[in-house]
Amino acid sequence: MKNLAQFIDHTLLAANATVNDIKQLCAEATEYHFASVCVNTGYVPLASECLKNSDVMVCCVVGFPLGACLTEAKAFEAAEAVRRGANEVDMVINVGMLKSGDLEFVRQDIATVLAACGNATLKVILETCLLTDEEIIQVCEICRTLNVGFVKTSTGFSTMGAAEHYVALMRKVVGEEIGVKASGGVRDRETAERMIKAGANRVGASASVAIVSGENVTSSGY
Amino acid sequence: MKNLAQFIDHTLLAANATVNDIKQLCAEATEYHFASVCVNTGYVPLASECLKNSDVMVCCVVGFPLGACLTEAKAFEAAEAVRRGANEVDMVINVGMLKSGDLEFVRQDIATVLAACGNATLKVILETCLLTDEEIIQVCEICRTLNVGFVKTSTGFSTMGAAEHYVALMRKVVGEEIGVKASGGVRDRETAERMIKAGANRVGASASVAIVSGENVTSSGY
Repeated sequence: MKNLAQFIDHTLLAANATVNDIKQLCAEATEYHFASVCVNTGYVPLASECLKNSDVMVCCVVGFPLGACLTEAKAFEAAEAVRRGANEVDMVINVGMLKSGDLEFVRQDIATVLAACGNATLKVILETCLLTDEEIIQVCEICRTLNVGFVKTSTGFSTMGAAEHYVALMRKVVGEEIGVKASGGVRDRETAERMIKAGANRVGASASVAIVSGENVTSSGY
Repeated sequence: MKNLAQFIDHTLLAANATVNDIKQLCAEATEYHFASVCVNTGYVPLASECLKNSDVMVCCVVGFPLGACLTEAKAFEAAEAVRRGANEVDMVINVGMLKSGDLEFVRQDIATVLAACGNATLKVILETCLLTDEEIIQVCEICRTLNVGFVKTSTGFSTMGAAEHYVALMRKVVGEEIGVKASGGVRDRETAERMIKAGANRVGASASVAIVSGENVTSSGY
């Protein structure tokens, strides 16, 4: 297994995260060589500036965390974030339209954001805790067909985060060509390693420094 | 006091709200003559269609619930929602930039969305549970200067909802020319009436039917 740090999107999405918090996030990501920092789009310009001489990517979230905004708004936010320096975009699907049985809407929503991302990598957040296994399979099949970058379990803002069952199911459907990101509630090394063993090749976490240091800490989560 | 229903934005913002849920929300709003239905922007076209022959307005949320997206993304979402039929737009301020001490950023963020709203009414969500009284006063002064439609306490997705202290403080700063909306955790008639007594002239609630029926119910909240 490659260095654990390279699997991790070092994440800070709290509404009250400050400029200094984001600078610290970027400094930690540079020091530990995390895959990316994951921030709200308002902080993409700052993170992009902080990381310009590093090997760390800028990841951002779009239509987050509810995924219930207009498709055009998600696509605009994605395009603007990429223009401002985002290398990766984590969008939330429209869960309500999936629950309404409108798979074509869900597909079109993802496809529109994918097109807006250009060369940036798109990760599609399913919010697995709100979905049935059948719905998870349906969305993963859409994502496989569209050839997105990753499917991702959770926002970290709903009722539950990542779980091995979801990660394994998602990996089974998307195959080996598409990534699987486990996120939400991953707060120690043991959990991170379990997610990777279940099929994840990226992990979203706020307690990333503790995870790579091997410490078990209780974080207030992200 | 005018009919309590006319104070209420009948609200459903859950990520997994379905088409049928929104149709029911609109039917209830029409029956009880609530001020508006408050939905995510993805449901603005549907709500606008459902309410076209009623006296109920379409209200939506923008940059919601974190308020941490790019200003341009908030403004685009607001303009697009208004174009699709929204009469009122409830935006979340950039709490992180306020916490970073950049009041000019906060002012510009609000002003840009205000301009994007055209003739629609803008409500500015402070997320009071994350703010100090001093910060609440600062944002209310910005809103008074910009002459927005309303200041609003809460998203309902953070650590706490509306409280009389916040409502009274906000009313004191904005005066009588600007509205004050109490939202988050208002689940019964007594609480709604307390908020109005404290200075609110609009209340956001999901349990609106119970509130106007005078029932005390335990709702799972919004």
